[in-house]
Amino acid sequence: MKNKLIYLEKLSGRIICILLLSAIVINGLKAQAPPRMVFQREPVVVSPEILKDHRVTFRLYAPEATEISISGEWMEYGNAEKMARNDTGLWTYTTAPLPEELYGYSFAVNGIKAIDPNNAQVKRDGARYENFFIIPGNQSNLYVINDVPHGTLSKIWYDSPVLSMQRRVYVYTPAGYEGSTSRYPVFYLLHGGGGDEDAWSTMGRTCQIMDNLIAQGKAKPMIVVMTNGNANQSAAQNDIPFAQDQGMAGMVSYAGKFEESLVKDVIPFIEKNFRAYNDKDHRALAGLSMGGGHTVTVTTENPNTFSYIGVFSAGLRSIDPQAPDAAKLEKERDARLEALKNSGYKLYWIGCGEDDFVKESSDYLRKTLDRLNFKYTYRESSGGHSWANWRIYLSEFAPLLF
Amino acid sequence: MKNKLIYLEKLSGRIICILLLSAIVINGLKAQAPPRMVFQREPVVVSPEILKDHRVTFRLYAPEATEISISGEWMEYGNAEKMARNDTGLWTYTTAPLPEELYGYSFAVNGIKAIDPNNAQVKRDGARYENFFIIPGNQSNLYVINDVPHGTLSKIWYDSPVLSMQRRVYVYTPAGYEGSTSRYPVFYLLHGGGGDEDAWSTMGRTCQIMDNLIAQGKAKPMIVVMTNGNANQSAAQNDIPFAQDQGMAGMVSYAGKFEESLVKDVIPFIEKNFRAYNDKDHRALAGLSMGGGHTVTVTTENPNTFSYIGVFSAGLRSIDPQAPDAAKLEKERDARLEALKNSGYKLYWIGCGEDDFVKESSDYLRKTLDRLNFKYTYRESSGGHSWANWRIYLSEFAPLLF
Repeated sequence: MKNKLIYLEKLSGRIICILLLSAIVINGLKAQAPPRMVFQREPVVVSPEILKDHRVTFRLYAPEATEISISGEWMEYGNAEKMARNDTGLWTYTTAPLPEELYGYSFAVNGIKAIDPNNAQVKRDGARYENFFIIPGNQSNLYVINDVPHGTLSKIWYDSPVLSMQRRVYVYTPAGYEGSTSRYPVFYLLHGGGGDEDAWSTMGRTCQIMDNLIAQGKAKPMIVVMTNGNANQSAAQNDIPFAQDQGMAGMVSYAGKFEESLVKDVIPFIEKNFRAYNDKDHRALAGLSMGGGHTVTVTTENPNTFSYIGVFSAGLRSIDPQAPDAAKLEKERDARLEALKNSGYKLYWIGCGEDDFVKESSDYLRKTLDRLNFKYTYRESSGGHSWANWRIYLSEFAPLLF
Repeated sequence: MKNKLIYLEKLSGRIICILLLSAIVINGLKAQAPPRMVFQREPVVVSPEILKDHRVTFRLYAPEATEISISGEWMEYGNAEKMARNDTGLWTYTTAPLPEELYGYSFAVNGIKAIDPNNAQVKRDGARYENFFIIPGNQSNLYVINDVPHGTLSKIWYDSPVLSMQRRVYVYTPAGYEGSTSRYPVFYLLHGGGGDEDAWSTMGRTCQIMDNLIAQGKAKPMIVVMTNGNANQSAAQNDIPFAQDQGMAGMVSYAGKFEESLVKDVIPFIEKNFRAYNDKDHRALAGLSMGGGHTVTVTTENPNTFSYIGVFSAGLRSIDPQAPDAAKLEKERDARLEALKNSGYKLYWIGCGEDDFVKESSDYLRKTLDRLNFKYTYRESSGGHSWANWRIYLSEFAPLLF
């Protein structure tokens, strides 16, 4: 049989895929007739290539570029390294051996960021897109889709009377949820500034981490609810683009509203529409950075709502002793924390990187809790204010729940 | 109050966002205390800017680049236009007025594709990422998240005994599904070559189209199931990267298996785990290109399974009259189509672009059906083998279902 070749796509002079005509049309409709589909690629540039010693080689075919650099999360923040061009126009760069981790990276071609066309793995951070790869290891294998039972990720909308809009929330339900009649505990997980409801499931690898921890018997099956903590947004900006004044600047007028909405809108919605337990011993709340601030606020203002509390890369701001009402503010704050303490929570978990720029306020949170004999667990990691740490915190916090 | 400024991110010399310290830490934990978060952006380059007359201006600040072009889906396929640089290094390009549509585009900076850093809207097509924007109009407003009740999109995994793997499927459940006890009809929707289970919900805008059609009363509430039609893949390559021989080339050995798996694995899974009707009058099947081929095969091999059938940009391959068993093959094929005809289907819908490279085989499908007095609906659109057409076909086909 002779097949006509159809060139489906040609991009930048490179044939992306070749489709045999008989893929689309059907030859004779024989029972069991193979669809006679053959896709093939030209010999491709492999990038990134993870070498056996965990060095990584990046390659980009760019004969017309005059300068290309690469920046990646294994470098000092803000750094970049020049790539080297050979005489065919192929640019390459090889790292030193890298520790196990998920690393983002991007190329800059004559000063403009470019995605690696040979790596389909891309993550979004706000409006920025960049590639990533994973150096395998015990910890980073939690970030991979392994051959274990998988939970479901649902993008679902709820009415928010507090915020007067429909809003989108991502809900992870563990493997087995669909076929079960059981109720499940619920873990509410909050993102940081610049993030949205998409962040924990993409950069945070929540579904992979939960699937793997549950499959290993290290975490209990639970529902994980990932909200959008920007109270002026109904959904992530890549799905509902916002004008500049509707963006983060617009959040000022919504101050405190997300925290209120979490308790009044989100929790009732989840407990109505999912098979969720509805008592505090089956509710956990954690957040990173801004979401850690949300967590501190929500749990102290609603002391009988969550028994498990996680504050990642966030803290407490010291009260200016010069302020006219400093003593009164401190007393009120202490009273709220005392109320939370006396409510009978089961876990108050604080995680912070030793180089995190919020370390001082995280320390101040612990000092305040110490002064009030408020028990907590503290985890200090290396590094700073990064998703690398937040993935680790999630993977250590989730096994302590329920 | 004086706030310390923290520069969270600095990328390519441009400050992306400025976070006030008090955003993350909590000042005194006052009830209703505003989180005191202010994000702001530097005066940003606006791109794309859709002008009132539907011309579109693109801007890219790239002082170090020496040549930048733009290519977009409003151009002849494969074309690109040079952008103009001003003396500050800002490159611009303005289109002629564009008809309403969703358009993909990308920049090429010294020959390498770059994403517009000022546009968070990005679509993935296989391993390629590019930006998009929407020119508003009656049809293209179906592609936008409007303020109407929204369905849920679930990424869910099922066991495939036929393919001996767990596989991921996207399931759209319409607004109201969660709170309801009703059963719903199911529309199975198949992607084309190079696509995966993600394609219809992203490039195809299925959730937006269904939300909007249902809200307008033009389509019935239904479940839409979007599978991965590449039988050698468990999930999309951006989540489970495949080696070259596990990629599309590897599909050859799985010929015919996806079609079998759809009927034996997917349908039972959906009807068990969702509140779905389980009779043929409540099942629809449609697909584009390769998925149109799958649709023709599955429906003729399973004539009592689907009452609503859609073949988008696909067709039937003529039998070579020189083939030794040509007459026998044609007779067998006719018999299968007769069986489908006699099964009492309700709709057989064929859509094709007048410039589509599969037009000839689409025409041959119609001629074959005509010869057999097999009733169908035919929709010929302008244009070719494109997502612009497949979105239109979906928006016209879905209202005819159930």
